[in-house]
Amino acid sequence: MSDFLDEHAAQVRAAATRIRPHIRRTAALSTDLDPDLRFKAECFQVTGSFKPRGAFNAVLSLLERGPRPKGFIAVSSGNHAQAVALAARTVGLPALILIPEDANPAKVAATRALGAEVMQDGITFANREQRLHEVMAERQLTLVHPFDDWDVIHGQGTAALELLEDEPALEVIATPVGGGGLLSGTALAAKSRGASVRVVGVEPEAADDAYRSWKAGSIQKLDHSPATLADGVRTTAIGVRNFEVMFGQGLVDEIVTVSEEEIASAVALAWTRLHLALEPTGALPLAAYASGKLGRGRTGLVFTGGNANLETVATLLTQP
Amino acid sequence: MSDFLDEHAAQVRAAATRIRPHIRRTAALSTDLDPDLRFKAECFQVTGSFKPRGAFNAVLSLLERGPRPKGFIAVSSGNHAQAVALAARTVGLPALILIPEDANPAKVAATRALGAEVMQDGITFANREQRLHEVMAERQLTLVHPFDDWDVIHGQGTAALELLEDEPALEVIATPVGGGGLLSGTALAAKSRGASVRVVGVEPEAADDAYRSWKAGSIQKLDHSPATLADGVRTTAIGVRNFEVMFGQGLVDEIVTVSEEEIASAVALAWTRLHLALEPTGALPLAAYASGKLGRGRTGLVFTGGNANLETVATLLTQP
Repeated sequence: MSDFLDEHAAQVRAAATRIRPHIRRTAALSTDLDPDLRFKAECFQVTGSFKPRGAFNAVLSLLERGPRPKGFIAVSSGNHAQAVALAARTVGLPALILIPEDANPAKVAATRALGAEVMQDGITFANREQRLHEVMAERQLTLVHPFDDWDVIHGQGTAALELLEDEPALEVIATPVGGGGLLSGTALAAKSRGASVRVVGVEPEAADDAYRSWKAGSIQKLDHSPATLADGVRTTAIGVRNFEVMFGQGLVDEIVTVSEEEIASAVALAWTRLHLALEPTGALPLAAYASGKLGRGRTGLVFTGGNANLETVATLLTQP
Repeated sequence: MSDFLDEHAAQVRAAATRIRPHIRRTAALSTDLDPDLRFKAECFQVTGSFKPRGAFNAVLSLLERGPRPKGFIAVSSGNHAQAVALAARTVGLPALILIPEDANPAKVAATRALGAEVMQDGITFANREQRLHEVMAERQLTLVHPFDDWDVIHGQGTAALELLEDEPALEVIATPVGGGGLLSGTALAAKSRGASVRVVGVEPEAADDAYRSWKAGSIQKLDHSPATLADGVRTTAIGVRNFEVMFGQGLVDEIVTVSEEEIASAVALAWTRLHLALEPTGALPLAAYASGKLGRGRTGLVFTGGNANLETVATLLTQP
């Protein structure tokens, strides 16, 4: 095992201890669909997604290292917003979340309900990074990046760590990939156990920057935010640290892409056969499995969340 | 503890041992919605409902007691059908399931996929009991009753037994009530632990025969199969053995009823906040909880299944 892997895997284990009081240890579920499948259903995690793993690890690590931040700031239209809001509230510090104006009002309300200040005026998907840096400077808040941050990566890796503790014989682990926080954390947790488990990232065809980055050997960027049902992976490029883990160090074995139809079918399959209410992004690994893209063997799928827009889901459930 | 309770509670524990190789020990889930809530999510049970607990206990007990049956027969348009089909296949005996002609084709297909013979021609909800007795005599098959059978009752009680092992501090347990198999088994499992846990049955207002039986002190029967979203509890009366446990021995504390609107809202709430895909019947205890009908305290809800008709569910999810 390389020093790189050794050191980062130790950080994932440290993150698991650090965040334990604040997160749920979600069960590894099995199904009638296939005796070789196991699911890490992070829809049952606090706030309904895996994101608090990384957010708590980042916030608690920042407090340990000091000096004490004045508060935290994040950009997100989705699950990272609620995660940072909850982690900040837990340590008694304010959080400011920038959310694009066209975001789902239910997610905005959920973020506010966790005590965060939400800023939406004039914020778009395109200008949000620039606005972030302006507001950060103005308010002297500390950024919790959604993926390109070692603390976040180590925190996200704890999901796979738990899954492999419960199911040590897994041969494949698949997770969604957007910015790469979860996938790189998963690769660190899985490969530190001896490299025999294949680590696969799944992304929409419409957002195939990770796939192209893997093939090119350098970070490839989408021109614009992709149109996909999987609204949790609409990032235009994976992060620098994430690229280093996944492809620089070669800890991710493969990126597979799935069509919008395959994502929609997976949401319906999750309902009918797994009895899980997943958001489309959370169903990406199931879409890859169901379309035969993960190969054979004992397979663990990380379902990242369940915070779906009900109207969208209702439509997906009744498609032919 | 009475001799009655003592003896039957021992049978529930024996059932748990007997069926263990064939069922899943479903986890007790917690939620952001309320720190006092726990769920026994039997939608994750084999076949997608709790029914295999009773069916396996009945089939295995019949084999233990001998003589070896020629095969099994059951009447069901839903989850009991799949449970009996699976239990029979597991012990290498045939199963014949009578399913009304107007039943959901998906459930018929699922029952056939488990190796059972399905008979539908000329069978209606009204004449199915009569047809059952004709066919039973003709084919010399052994009946697995959906609820009015001690082996079935003891098997269904294993869900609450597990829930109380995981969550010994529960003050309330609520389950759906149709024929009363699950509720009477739950009462036996719960009250044998010292009577401090309240046992509550939940049924649709449109199918309030258990409520009226409780009030009257004798079995009250509906004139016809009730029209309710909760198609798993369309029985017209609870069973004799079930009545004895629930109200004869007084082991059930209360029956509460919920409206169709409350059931529909509970299915949507289960999706949005619990991330569970429940069938309307499975959501009955959540409907009672959400409408404030279960009182206070640490509460365990038994969600019986997730085998919903997708069109129905899609409609419920988008209701205002």
